[in-house]
Amino acid sequence: MTQRDLASTQYKAGVLIEALEYIKAYSNKTVVIKLGGSAMTTPRLAEAFAEDMALMRLVGIRPVVVHGGGPQISELMKKLGMQPRFVAGHRVTDEATVEVARMVLLGQINRRIVGLINRHGDLATGLSGEDGNLLVTTRKFGPSGEDLGLVGEVVEVRPTVLQKLLDDGFIPVIAPLGISSDGEVHNVNADTAAGAIAKALRAEKLVYLTDVAGLYEDLGDEDTLLSEVELEDLVNLIRSDKLSEGMLPKISSCVEALEGGVSRVHILDGRIEHAVLLEVFTPEGIGTMVRAPGSPTESEFRALKD
Amino acid sequence: MTQRDLASTQYKAGVLIEALEYIKAYSNKTVVIKLGGSAMTTPRLAEAFAEDMALMRLVGIRPVVVHGGGPQISELMKKLGMQPRFVAGHRVTDEATVEVARMVLLGQINRRIVGLINRHGDLATGLSGEDGNLLVTTRKFGPSGEDLGLVGEVVEVRPTVLQKLLDDGFIPVIAPLGISSDGEVHNVNADTAAGAIAKALRAEKLVYLTDVAGLYEDLGDEDTLLSEVELEDLVNLIRSDKLSEGMLPKISSCVEALEGGVSRVHILDGRIEHAVLLEVFTPEGIGTMVRAPGSPTESEFRALKD
Amino acid sequence: MTQRDLASTQYKAGVLIEALEYIKAYSNKTVVIKLGGSAMTTPRLAEAFAEDMALMRLVGIRPVVVHGGGPQISELMKKLGMQPRFVAGHRVTDEATVEVARMVLLGQINRRIVGLINRHGDLATGLSGEDGNLLVTTRKFGPSGEDLGLVGEVVEVRPTVLQKLLDDGFIPVIAPLGISSDGEVHNVNADTAAGAIAKALRAEKLVYLTDVAGLYEDLGDEDTLLSEVELEDLVNLIRSDKLSEGMLPKISSCVEALEGGVSRVHILDGRIEHAVLLEVFTPEGIGTMVRAPGSPTESEFRALKD
Amino acid sequence: MTQRDLASTQYKAGVLIEALEYIKAYSNKTVVIKLGGSAMTTPRLAEAFAEDMALMRLVGIRPVVVHGGGPQISELMKKLGMQPRFVAGHRVTDEATVEVARMVLLGQINRRIVGLINRHGDLATGLSGEDGNLLVTTRKFGPSGEDLGLVGEVVEVRPTVLQKLLDDGFIPVIAPLGISSDGEVHNVNADTAAGAIAKALRAEKLVYLTDVAGLYEDLGDEDTLLSEVELEDLVNLIRSDKLSEGMLPKISSCVEALEGGVSRVHILDGRIEHAVLLEVFTPEGIGTMVRAPGSPTESEFRALKD
Amino acid sequence: MTQRDLASTQYKAGVLIEALEYIKAYSNKTVVIKLGGSAMTTPRLAEAFAEDMALMRLVGIRPVVVHGGGPQISELMKKLGMQPRFVAGHRVTDEATVEVARMVLLGQINRRIVGLINRHGDLATGLSGEDGNLLVTTRKFGPSGEDLGLVGEVVEVRPTVLQKLLDDGFIPVIAPLGISSDGEVHNVNADTAAGAIAKALRAEKLVYLTDVAGLYEDLGDEDTLLSEVELEDLVNLIRSDKLSEGMLPKISSCVEALEGGVSRVHILDGRIEHAVLLEVFTPEGIGTMVRAPGSPTESEFRALKD
Amino acid sequence: MTQRDLASTQYKAGVLIEALEYIKAYSNKTVVIKLGGSAMTTPRLAEAFAEDMALMRLVGIRPVVVHGGGPQISELMKKLGMQPRFVAGHRVTDEATVEVARMVLLGQINRRIVGLINRHGDLATGLSGEDGNLLVTTRKFGPSGEDLGLVGEVVEVRPTVLQKLLDDGFIPVIAPLGISSDGEVHNVNADTAAGAIAKALRAEKLVYLTDVAGLYEDLGDEDTLLSEVELEDLVNLIRSDKLSEGMLPKISSCVEALEGGVSRVHILDGRIEHAVLLEVFTPEGIGTMVRAPGSPTESEFRALKD
Repeated sequence: MTQRDLASTQYKAGVLIEALEYIKAYSNKTVVIKLGGSAMTTPRLAEAFAEDMALMRLVGIRPVVVHGGGPQISELMKKLGMQPRFVAGHRVTDEATVEVARMVLLGQINRRIVGLINRHGDLATGLSGEDGNLLVTTRKFGPSGEDLGLVGEVVEVRPTVLQKLLDDGFIPVIAPLGISSDGEVHNVNADTAAGAIAKALRAEKLVYLTDVAGLYEDLGDEDTLLSEVELEDLVNLIRSDKLSEGMLPKISSCVEALEGGVSRVHILDGRIEHAVLLEVFTPEGIGTMVRAPGSPTESEFRALKD
Repeated sequence: MTQRDLASTQYKAGVLIEALEYIKAYSNKTVVIKLGGSAMTTPRLAEAFAEDMALMRLVGIRPVVVHGGGPQISELMKKLGMQPRFVAGHRVTDEATVEVARMVLLGQINRRIVGLINRHGDLATGLSGEDGNLLVTTRKFGPSGEDLGLVGEVVEVRPTVLQKLLDDGFIPVIAPLGISSDGEVHNVNADTAAGAIAKALRAEKLVYLTDVAGLYEDLGDEDTLLSEVELEDLVNLIRSDKLSEGMLPKISSCVEALEGGVSRVHILDGRIEHAVLLEVFTPEGIGTMVRAPGSPTESEFRALKD
Repeated sequence: MTQRDLASTQYKAGVLIEALEYIKAYSNKTVVIKLGGSAMTTPRLAEAFAEDMALMRLVGIRPVVVHGGGPQISELMKKLGMQPRFVAGHRVTDEATVEVARMVLLGQINRRIVGLINRHGDLATGLSGEDGNLLVTTRKFGPSGEDLGLVGEVVEVRPTVLQKLLDDGFIPVIAPLGISSDGEVHNVNADTAAGAIAKALRAEKLVYLTDVAGLYEDLGDEDTLLSEVELEDLVNLIRSDKLSEGMLPKISSCVEALEGGVSRVHILDGRIEHAVLLEVFTPEGIGTMVRAPGSPTESEFRALKD
Repeated sequence: MTQRDLASTQYKAGVLIEALEYIKAYSNKTVVIKLGGSAMTTPRLAEAFAEDMALMRLVGIRPVVVHGGGPQISELMKKLGMQPRFVAGHRVTDEATVEVARMVLLGQINRRIVGLINRHGDLATGLSGEDGNLLVTTRKFGPSGEDLGLVGEVVEVRPTVLQKLLDDGFIPVIAPLGISSDGEVHNVNADTAAGAIAKALRAEKLVYLTDVAGLYEDLGDEDTLLSEVELEDLVNLIRSDKLSEGMLPKISSCVEALEGGVSRVHILDGRIEHAVLLEVFTPEGIGTMVRAPGSPTESEFRALKD
Repeated sequence: MTQRDLASTQYKAGVLIEALEYIKAYSNKTVVIKLGGSAMTTPRLAEAFAEDMALMRLVGIRPVVVHGGGPQISELMKKLGMQPRFVAGHRVTDEATVEVARMVLLGQINRRIVGLINRHGDLATGLSGEDGNLLVTTRKFGPSGEDLGLVGEVVEVRPTVLQKLLDDGFIPVIAPLGISSDGEVHNVNADTAAGAIAKALRAEKLVYLTDVAGLYEDLGDEDTLLSEVELEDLVNLIRSDKLSEGMLPKISSCVEALEGGVSRVHILDGRIEHAVLLEVFTPEGIGTMVRAPGSPTESEFRALKD
Repeated sequence: MTQRDLASTQYKAGVLIEALEYIKAYSNKTVVIKLGGSAMTTPRLAEAFAEDMALMRLVGIRPVVVHGGGPQISELMKKLGMQPRFVAGHRVTDEATVEVARMVLLGQINRRIVGLINRHGDLATGLSGEDGNLLVTTRKFGPSGEDLGLVGEVVEVRPTVLQKLLDDGFIPVIAPLGISSDGEVHNVNADTAAGAIAKALRAEKLVYLTDVAGLYEDLGDEDTLLSEVELEDLVNLIRSDKLSEGMLPKISSCVEALEGGVSRVHILDGRIEHAVLLEVFTPEGIGTMVRAPGSPTESEFRALKD
């Protein structure tokens, strides 16, 4: 081995050793990842995400993936001659629409993620929120009481099926569908589903992979990206009415998760390859982090493990 | 309570007690059920099937459901302007077709079965043969070597995910999709998938719910229904070339399962309400039974448990 | 199968499905049954009782049987030239009498029940309250302080041996004998023993199989059978001094068990074949039910499980 | 502490340390003890036996007690006006007789042993060979084919209930009754039952507590006590026809047990206080020992553990 | 066996039976023994100690041994030309000294104890307080703030490694070294280490094997040995300033252990062979016992188990 | 984050992902590492080794460390005025020498490794081959029968204590001392000890960290380093008599381990930082690898896991 080869090889060792303290800190902890559309836009991004999940699982972390699929649902609806309709950002959902949503979410998107992860072993298994009655929902109404049809609000999470699969070494990949107590199937906002699941599992971390770099102090100015904000700031943000329709459920779910026992929520840029891996295994800060009040800082948290 | 009420009530007790010896005999045994389309043709038939599964699970039997969905796949293809094409009974399957198959199997049919069972508890969880790499497949070719595209032949069953879910008290409901070692998704014949899974789990019983009353000595004559046949008879049947394209994979899978450790295969009429329940919990013979050579008769089997 | 056969068969399926929700609700719950003499008066009644126990165990319920044997004790005493003597309904018990009681309870009655149940599998195992020091007793005195000899009052239940046998899948059949801290063997009232055991196991249900149809509003009038009464009513009944010497320990034990964590007590007519089975697995009300205040009604209870 | 006290105390320490290597060698091993009548003839003998059982259990050995009760059965029969009748040493047993046997064995003798052991903790639990269908029997006939009635020959031991109780830390005390496959209760020779149970449990040791000092080279001469004999010698002894009717089943059971996997059988004098304890925990040889061919000698056995 | 042999043998049985109630009482309890130098002064004393540990472990008690080694450390230091130095009874410890301490404690003394115990089986395993970060320490200063160098004060016990080894059936033998949070190795007083470990394990008993017979009312007068004292008396003793430098850490650790959940502390004379065995398994009182207020007396404690 | 930062960060991700397939392949596998002196010569090398061990353990591999310490033993001997003496490469070992060896191995070297690893968590625990009688030895003699004194040859490995500690999540660090059946302590060659332990644990991999780069085709020519050799080549090498005294036990142990079930042995250069990590987690070949005949190549091995 030449000196040059050796130097390059030693650099590799350094990276692995740097990861050591993060592996220690997250060992046996649950991390819920909401996978937004942007993280799947190129094959390479999708593969990198799958690699991240496999690596996390193999080093002893318990990842849970929740995905959405709005654009793909609209696309298939159109192919079938149906007209998507929205009220205040919510898809108005009749029975035919929920059928399409199920087909797209479970038959396309869920499968793609499961397949990519399983290239690395018998690791992932797809789930609908209907399986084992995981997500129990009621009908949700629009902000002014509009009838949205079969749109679900999560009223209970029955996490047994998830806990069993996690204990058995699998990575659950969840499509955000819910089931009401009288057997009605509901379409659920994926951000909200991820938050509710993280809370029910008392996850250590909840990660939103989005198509923005994070939260900004001044939304128009990219230089004002916030690397850490307080729970209080999020609450103010919601009250400020300045949030877009897409960000509102995300931010509301963050608040609910943090108040319900999750220690840390991250809003990451899904367009960066291996964004989750970098967040979890390196000191480099990516995106915006929100910490539950009273929970240790990242470095305190790692120190706890020493 | 009047005498009449009492008599009716006592009759109920008799039915339950009659079930006792069957519950004993099948306690903790695995039963794989291939659910054919006919068993889902009316809501009542479908609900009755779901009740049967829930009852079996609750009294300590381990049911596994495998379903197909050919007609529904063709239907959605037509809606999307695609033309189903068959060679020797096999659907020629390109990538667009397999996408449709996944959507229909996982987003429609699998969901419907899971939903009906879960009315009775947090019992069922849907699975694709892709989950945990359950069904590993290679491309299958037509009888004369025709290229069928993404049609899969099962080369390995990795039953870990099934065994874990069964041990955890769930009812797995499986869509017959497979995954090749290089990540290609394949459409698999549901009869074949059920047989391969039964064999891998060394199931006690494999049940085919079909749209016929069973096997006939003389196919045209309903009075010649056979209540029991030998494995040898099936082998002869296959060699006779008299089997329809629909029956061939069923009968071939029967043979393979019986030779691979399954004790008993049943071909039942899915159009009879609660056909599975009646087969498992009552002495009334329904349909046709094939026993593995050397395995005990039904009454010997029950006696073993005493 | 003729249409008529099919109808009859379908009726059977209906009965089994009706049982489904009861099996769900009682899955893994403990039910203590006090078996009174009347339930053993004919061979058929006794066999039906044994079938009920076997069925309950096999579908996942944990039955515990407690039996008495007063008349048979008196009978053997007479054969041996001894004179039974009672004070305020309690058998005055010297050492010779307790020897006879042990022989009758353990050598006759306990054996008969165990034998009938074990026709359905290796299910039952007989126990004395002395085994594993299950029932720790002190001498009990008559209402006016009369010396009753070796009659025991339960001061402690050490349920380990029961819990182990239940966890191991057995049906314990218990003869009501107790052991004092200084090694004296005591005869214990079987109703009281059943109540104390139900309380110690925090049983879901305590069933008294008696020789009456239940409690009556007006004792002389068969039409005034009460299908449900309140705990409060029982307390009043005890205070009213209207209870017979046979009913007093039963009713007192009911009160103690309900106050000690048992949810429901039933007083059933042991002369009805399969009385326990019908109570547990069908909606038909038999006898009288007393519910612990605050515990759910039967239908609420079942709904909890859905 | 005076020098004298100290010396006495040190002697105690020496005895305990001497026991150390025996405790090591028998740790977690099963020892079946057939308790003959002579070991119960004085209260002190019986108490000493109970102490031995408790000590063995507490230091990690798994004792199983099997007892007889012939004389007491005859006694109660006479009290009830029944006439005991024997053919070739076997009690001719009609239904009334088996009822008496059950009452005496389970209601008297079994209870007495359980009670004495349980003074030392919640340790013993009584069992009939009927419990959990432990001893499955068929009718046995006399040497010349005489009908002996309900006398049982063990055809199968179903040891689950014993193994569970042993694993749960209990000492099973077993009355030698059997149950036939059609539900007939049989009286079983206690020596035979002990041998069959030892074989089914693959016990390390089977001990017969008898009313003789052991086997003699010359039966009439007390000085010819044999401290060790070969299995072959026993076989010759049986063929010699010199064995008494009482010794024959003992010796035959020894042979069967040794051939079935038991390593060592001991014939001890039950009239010596703590005979079992001395046999197991001290180097002093008591009675006669028979070793399975090929199994290690006592000192080799202990050395294995070091 | 002669009458004389029999009498001697029976005496042995008596000793074993006497031990029975102590074995019962201490079954599965943890006992921490601080082994002082005097108990190792002759080979026979050391062997007897090892026998005691092996016997305790084999009858189901969980012994933990903590040892010191001051004189041997000084001896090796002198051989290596180093000069031991003490301040207020504490060895002033520089880096070279702690290296010597580790070599002596782990390479000599710990090994000797492990070796003697392991003659009786694969029982003992040596540990430093550094293993698994068992004893976390900070630097301790002298009574007037003197710098003692690498002398440790225990700030945390991380007992996982001990609990695992105890659960796995081993006897941990611990050298009193500690590790600070920044990786500095400290020499720890063995009496203090034993007390801290006993407290962390909530041991039933803590035994100090010393070179005195126990505590005296009047230190100069051997006849005033105290067989039992109150915790309060110890507290007064500490305040009285009458304790020698060697007894102070012992007595302080007693107080801390008793206040921290240990039920009983014993100060025994290590020069008596089998002192621990005699204390634990016989009624003879040796040395001085201190009971935690509110904890049962020795005889109450044993009675609890009955 | 600048583009440059991002590129560097992405490179890190790439290194982690590259490690993924190695983590998969070695998950739950045992790897025994013989740590030679050269790997401890600088503080940085020693720390890097400790990091490697911690990382391996945390990602689910089971590392076992065996170390030597010859030079340090000689050094302390000299300080104590003793004269090291060697016969055919073996240290002639009298009692004083073995005492020094124990002090150095257990009190110095073992401690240093344990301490460095435990900076990363409560991970390591030191062991002597005497603990739990792990290494049972007899005296070894020189090649011409010379008396070497207390030098041990491993005759049995009793791996229970290792397996328990590995199952409990610890990293055992083992000093190569052995114990004979009569209690004599022996000094064991560390290479031999490592090989025997790897064989007893059926380790996946045995790694020798040495002070050479590997095996050379032509010993004098650094350019002839062999990256892979056959077991057969090793056997020939031994027969060739060309091996140095230091390499002989290493190569002999390799052969024994490979023939005894270990799949792969590596001879690595301990002077390279993170040599073990690089060998295990990257594709870069370091040093020389020997594969057991019939075992899969490295890439086949990893493919097995997919």
